[in-house]
Amino acid sequence: MVVVMAPGATEADIRAVVSLVETAGGDAFVSRGVERTIVGLVGDVQQFGSLNLRGMRGVTDVVRISAPYKLVSRENHAERSVVRVGGVPIGPGTMTLIAGPCAVETPEQTLQAAQMAQAAGATLLRGGAFKPRSSPYAFQGLGEAGLRILADVREETGLPVVTEVVDAHDVELVASYADMLQIGTRNAQNFALLQAAGEAGRPVLLKRGMSGTIEEWLMAAEYVAQRGNLDIVLCERGIRTFEKATRNTLDVAAVPVAQRLSHLPVIVDPSHSGGSRDLVLPLTRAGIAVGADGVIIDVHPHPETALCDGPQALVDGDLRELARLVRDLPPLVGRRLTVAEGDAAPVPV
Amino acid sequence: MVVVMAPGATEADIRAVVSLVETAGGDAFVSRGVERTIVGLVGDVQQFGSLNLRGMRGVTDVVRISAPYKLVSRENHAERSVVRVGGVPIGPGTMTLIAGPCAVETPEQTLQAAQMAQAAGATLLRGGAFKPRSSPYAFQGLGEAGLRILADVREETGLPVVTEVVDAHDVELVASYADMLQIGTRNAQNFALLQAAGEAGRPVLLKRGMSGTIEEWLMAAEYVAQRGNLDIVLCERGIRTFEKATRNTLDVAAVPVAQRLSHLPVIVDPSHSGGSRDLVLPLTRAGIAVGADGVIIDVHPHPETALCDGPQALVDGDLRELARLVRDLPPLVGRRLTVAEGDAAPVPV
Amino acid sequence: MVVVMAPGATEADIRAVVSLVETAGGDAFVSRGVERTIVGLVGDVQQFGSLNLRGMRGVTDVVRISAPYKLVSRENHAERSVVRVGGVPIGPGTMTLIAGPCAVETPEQTLQAAQMAQAAGATLLRGGAFKPRSSPYAFQGLGEAGLRILADVREETGLPVVTEVVDAHDVELVASYADMLQIGTRNAQNFALLQAAGEAGRPVLLKRGMSGTIEEWLMAAEYVAQRGNLDIVLCERGIRTFEKATRNTLDVAAVPVAQRLSHLPVIVDPSHSGGSRDLVLPLTRAGIAVGADGVIIDVHPHPETALCDGPQALVDGDLRELARLVRDLPPLVGRRLTVAEGDAAPVPV
Amino acid sequence: MVVVMAPGATEADIRAVVSLVETAGGDAFVSRGVERTIVGLVGDVQQFGSLNLRGMRGVTDVVRISAPYKLVSRENHAERSVVRVGGVPIGPGTMTLIAGPCAVETPEQTLQAAQMAQAAGATLLRGGAFKPRSSPYAFQGLGEAGLRILADVREETGLPVVTEVVDAHDVELVASYADMLQIGTRNAQNFALLQAAGEAGRPVLLKRGMSGTIEEWLMAAEYVAQRGNLDIVLCERGIRTFEKATRNTLDVAAVPVAQRLSHLPVIVDPSHSGGSRDLVLPLTRAGIAVGADGVIIDVHPHPETALCDGPQALVDGDLRELARLVRDLPPLVGRRLTVAEGDAAPVPV
Repeated sequence: MVVVMAPGATEADIRAVVSLVETAGGDAFVSRGVERTIVGLVGDVQQFGSLNLRGMRGVTDVVRISAPYKLVSRENHAERSVVRVGGVPIGPGTMTLIAGPCAVETPEQTLQAAQMAQAAGATLLRGGAFKPRSSPYAFQGLGEAGLRILADVREETGLPVVTEVVDAHDVELVASYADMLQIGTRNAQNFALLQAAGEAGRPVLLKRGMSGTIEEWLMAAEYVAQRGNLDIVLCERGIRTFEKATRNTLDVAAVPVAQRLSHLPVIVDPSHSGGSRDLVLPLTRAGIAVGADGVIIDVHPHPETALCDGPQALVDGDLRELARLVRDLPPLVGRRLTVAEGDAAPVPV
Repeated sequence: MVVVMAPGATEADIRAVVSLVETAGGDAFVSRGVERTIVGLVGDVQQFGSLNLRGMRGVTDVVRISAPYKLVSRENHAERSVVRVGGVPIGPGTMTLIAGPCAVETPEQTLQAAQMAQAAGATLLRGGAFKPRSSPYAFQGLGEAGLRILADVREETGLPVVTEVVDAHDVELVASYADMLQIGTRNAQNFALLQAAGEAGRPVLLKRGMSGTIEEWLMAAEYVAQRGNLDIVLCERGIRTFEKATRNTLDVAAVPVAQRLSHLPVIVDPSHSGGSRDLVLPLTRAGIAVGADGVIIDVHPHPETALCDGPQALVDGDLRELARLVRDLPPLVGRRLTVAEGDAAPVPV
Repeated sequence: MVVVMAPGATEADIRAVVSLVETAGGDAFVSRGVERTIVGLVGDVQQFGSLNLRGMRGVTDVVRISAPYKLVSRENHAERSVVRVGGVPIGPGTMTLIAGPCAVETPEQTLQAAQMAQAAGATLLRGGAFKPRSSPYAFQGLGEAGLRILADVREETGLPVVTEVVDAHDVELVASYADMLQIGTRNAQNFALLQAAGEAGRPVLLKRGMSGTIEEWLMAAEYVAQRGNLDIVLCERGIRTFEKATRNTLDVAAVPVAQRLSHLPVIVDPSHSGGSRDLVLPLTRAGIAVGADGVIIDVHPHPETALCDGPQALVDGDLRELARLVRDLPPLVGRRLTVAEGDAAPVPV
Repeated sequence: MVVVMAPGATEADIRAVVSLVETAGGDAFVSRGVERTIVGLVGDVQQFGSLNLRGMRGVTDVVRISAPYKLVSRENHAERSVVRVGGVPIGPGTMTLIAGPCAVETPEQTLQAAQMAQAAGATLLRGGAFKPRSSPYAFQGLGEAGLRILADVREETGLPVVTEVVDAHDVELVASYADMLQIGTRNAQNFALLQAAGEAGRPVLLKRGMSGTIEEWLMAAEYVAQRGNLDIVLCERGIRTFEKATRNTLDVAAVPVAQRLSHLPVIVDPSHSGGSRDLVLPLTRAGIAVGADGVIIDVHPHPETALCDGPQALVDGDLRELARLVRDLPPLVGRRLTVAEGDAAPVPV
């Protein structure tokens, strides 16, 4: 950290800062400039976090220099990680397609959606049994009955299951059915849930908060990691901006930035960011091209009667085009579409 | 709702929309314009929510006309509500000061902060025992030990207690100590928590999500209300914008807007919005002047060693100025500072 | 400035930074930490601005420490300035009301609006002859004919005139009629216009860009100041956020922040921020209470037929309430309503 | 437009709306619902724009249904346009690379950058002679001397020139040297400049305002088009959000959205959105993959001493990779890299 002193700060003000830092077990280097003096702090950033340096007399600003996350940082873990979900890898060299219905409604609908997904090249099945909805009057999901349907469809198709958990006390239940726990954008700072997911023994798909900075997203991952689980996949799903022509603004640059700051895999969600069917394929192409380790996409056999987010689900011809692009686009960025376990080796990066 | 047809929509497209609406039990009125046709939907908006009108052929847009919240709406409840917390009213005619430490640290610190708050005119004590922190390495609160301290300080000072709950399964515990449950900005869409709070038999202080629209805030209140609890106080605490000179941007206009849309009381949090001590009093004045039903403010006997948000806690001379302004400013907007139970009647609005 | 080196930066990388800074005539202090090294730069920040420090090997970040503006900064000009417009002061100790029609339409409408404004306590008349409109199909203003009407109304009422200029090459013309030049939010980074206004010999009312940071706003003022004109009044008029219930989000905290960073007066525009009539008085109260040096408000004798922004113009009873609050509220914040030249002395701050 | 009446609106209120619309020459259709009544307006939207419907008694909301832009809309011009710049096409079927230095500094630097650009596949040269800079102390460009350098380099390389104009009164001068006029993000609502550019007889490259909605961007294009110039290319260059890890947030979804709403070509600027060299290639890939009609990229022979935006300029190996991706990626989205005039035919879409 760097403490910036005000132009009129006195020697006593500067000494007070140095003294407080040293008392906390750190070292402080004073650089006196023509206009102002700065104090560089050396030591463990956690030591200084609880000091109220900003409130001291003569202090103008306190600038954090090093990242506040450790376990998920790439600084101490230079190689990018591969996370395996039911045997399916997500990480460098591959591009993994996760697809399925936004919400599990019936066994038939879920199976059909899974088969559509598989035909398009998906190796993981998504599907929601617990749905966080802005309105208490909207469909909230089937709960455990939905989890059972997902497990049956996994049996039928062989696709490992990714599904959302919305409350810390459901984590054990959901983990008993699912291969990967999804934590949604509205729970990106639900720390009790993050910690529970960190102890569940399942890989976690962690969506970025809709107004979360990349740093906050990595801090949320740090909450999971701190409980002993480093099998975390980050998912960029669009952020909230002033633009209303799309549901959210897909921040594609977040993919390379997060991959530079963290060793964790990063995927994108083109369905929930754009919020309309005609944007899903363009945003999927953008996500793959920018270098995402995977994409997660809504498909539905009958979008017009879907109970959740029907307007953005892919169907029919869209899926043939999806199949084509997840096959042809990844090689241009040094990747290969992930196929079912053991079928092919990833391209080396 | 209004369905807007594309310029090239055919009669068959229009008939399909009308037919779907009628099947769902509604009525549809078709208005044919020179350039385009619109279809007005009449009936219960809940009926239409699950129809995928937007995905139908020839449909350009679907515009919602009526508010999606009912119980908290002012449309069916014209008079503004008063919520009582341990006998202290929050609502029209009064201006209630809630103050106390950001986090409960020790019995002494909490008692001192409570006495400072009371001397400044506060009739409710705030203080956090469960703290949601962006970093897993930051102080997370004392938990139940903190709740006990708050209860002791209530005993000593007579101030009813407002404290945060961060997980659905702590609601019962927190409610057994607190007079009012606070739900923080990071949990503004933690629906399991909102529902649990709705069943706890305590008034709820509901902070706006840091990127939540006013409508989403009212929908969150609707989640609480739907479980039978209408004793909800809304709290504007600043929203996330591109401006970085302040921690958040206090959206003062949200106060009159929310008061027009909902019958619930609306207060402001000048401490967490500005994020620095020198902004707390100016923002408190702005909040009272804009017409808030109360303000909630951090005070701390020793901000320089506070474990949480020290830089924004008021101390010493700030508190005398706070006492002056909560006494002098409310009468200019037709209000009177709330005093301890039975001491004075509110000014009629 | 502080240059933050990457954890793996070599001694040669550090020496290269130091050497580049010294070549540019500055001094560099190296602080070696356990995890990383920082280099503090001492000297004139303008020297370093053109160095590509961020692009050097081993450099992680470059953090600017001192403000990039000089002439408008409070660092070298501790006392807050008073700007006089046709003899009317704007600055500490007073609260100046500027009011009038959004657009000048006819001599009668302008005169009536001016008289309404004056009756409410205004000492300056606002009114637009050149209107920047998002749509080329909207009313663009009367141009010079509008300026003549404003001059006639000034003659009749004695109110000095504030009016907008939208193009550098109209500055001379507008300055020949107006007492103060307004630069609108859409031109907040129209540098040619800012420079021309800096040379026009008239005070300037500078609105904040709708997505401009406080720093960018002060940099825009620096453009005016650099051409020799320090008679600048800053105007907060709402920023663009995700919230759509209001036209813009009035950032009241920007007032004390800008007053701390700059010696220039700061006023607020409650009409254009809220965008609806029922928000104008609440936001005016908030603006005065937060400590603004003035407010600028739209009034119109017949809002229902106004050619521009009618929905937000005050009329009738609103104006009596406005008169009351601009008289009663300022004393609570140590100010007095500005009255016509020589009529009263401001309250000392 | 649709006028939404309040639940308590009377028949007289409804009749007043209908009557006002009819007086303005339109037709109004009344749809009476259980809870509220809506009035659909039929006729030319321009007629209704100046009516203060929102201010009438009993009116809750006025919802605009059709687009406010006409000439640039795709509704009346279904086929996507091709804009030719000095013979080089930008539009469907091709992907045009525009590259060059951010600022023209010297003849040598400009020529070298142009040759680097050409080697990478660029068919148009970018380069700034007039630079809009946030700070008055930053390099403002060489002005006409810079234009002459660009003209010389065009002579030498055959690359037509795209360059920015920042003031309406420089348009004629810039147009006398340039093949295409660029209007930057800070001038996206400088209407005098837009109109002057519409009369200059040169194609216009129109950047989106950094906080401009897609609709405002199209309205800015409408300003140009209204003066008789439909040779407009839209450029998405990143928008301002809360995220600070990147300079701006590249809104890739804006490309397909703008292409759906307008017939104009849409390109992206990966250099100014990300703001750092390591993001330029990933964002270029995303831009091409999402379906942009072109990309515009900063290159510089010596980024470490560049006078403007050096940190984001491509150099050396980056350029070889750029050459590879602009060749290999477009065919996957049904396009072909634009080559010098007459060299190849575009792929049909």
